[in-house]
Amino acid sequence: MAHRTFAGVTVGESIDCGTVTVDREEILAFGGRYDPLAIHTDPAAAAESPFGGIVASGIHTFALTQPPVVEAFYGDSDVIAAGHVESLRFPAPVRPDDTLAVELEILDERPSAGNDARGVVTARRTATVGDEVVLEMRNETVWAR
Amino acid sequence: MAHRTFAGVTVGESIDCGTVTVDREEILAFGGRYDPLAIHTDPAAAAESPFGGIVASGIHTFALTQPPVVEAFYGDSDVIAAGHVESLRFPAPVRPDDTLAVELEILDERPSAGNDARGVVTARRTATVGDEVVLEMRNETVWAR
Repeated sequence: MAHRTFAGVTVGESIDCGTVTVDREEILAFGGRYDPLAIHTDPAAAAESPFGGIVASGIHTFALTQPPVVEAFYGDSDVIAAGHVESLRFPAPVRPDDTLAVELEILDERPSAGNDARGVVTARRTATVGDEVVLEMRNETVWAR
Repeated sequence: MAHRTFAGVTVGESIDCGTVTVDREEILAFGGRYDPLAIHTDPAAAAESPFGGIVASGIHTFALTQPPVVEAFYGDSDVIAAGHVESLRFPAPVRPDDTLAVELEILDERPSAGNDARGVVTARRTATVGDEVVLEMRNETVWAR
């Protein structure tokens, strides 16, 4: 992967970030530490919930999509900081052993208002399990120019 | 804490969710697993970055605010699922040993469109370190009625 500069980011570009498989024990551990709701931590209670079993915390799903995106795009780049997450949805649950396919699409790039040395990139991140979208996010990141 | 029903949620209500202190080793571990950028994982490289040192992943900051919010509000309630995160910002960095004060404010509640058995609650979550806001989120959750 070549180093990404702000000028090297192209609006309309789609980046295949590969896949990540979700581990049941990690769902339970992440839930126990960071999102202690029964649907993430208690298999018996989760079985009685509308989900019918353990599902990953949305924060965990978000976290799981980040290494593929860093590996494929942000990791070797002039990105400086997270900006604004404009929208984050979890349209379908993520279950143990699901494999998420992660993709990034560049929606917009523009100079930073009031700072010529910075730029803003808007991207859409999606994670899908088969044909089903399980995460959709639109966010801005701040870049050096 | 009394069990929260949808009817028991009041627009305009503010809920003090207490505080959480950020551990340096946890910043490094979370970054290594879920957000492997140098500003989260490599103290020497982070020292040379605009942040001047290790900062927490935004996803980690989001995750850290969740247990206080679950403890104070969602944990013993009729919430069913995460809905839509309408906005998530990290206006200032989170550093090792920072203590985040977490607050939830109820902005809106309404019946679910097309499902009388469900309702939607819109809330604003803020985390502050001293006077500085480090996380601001507006999100919807889906509740049983």
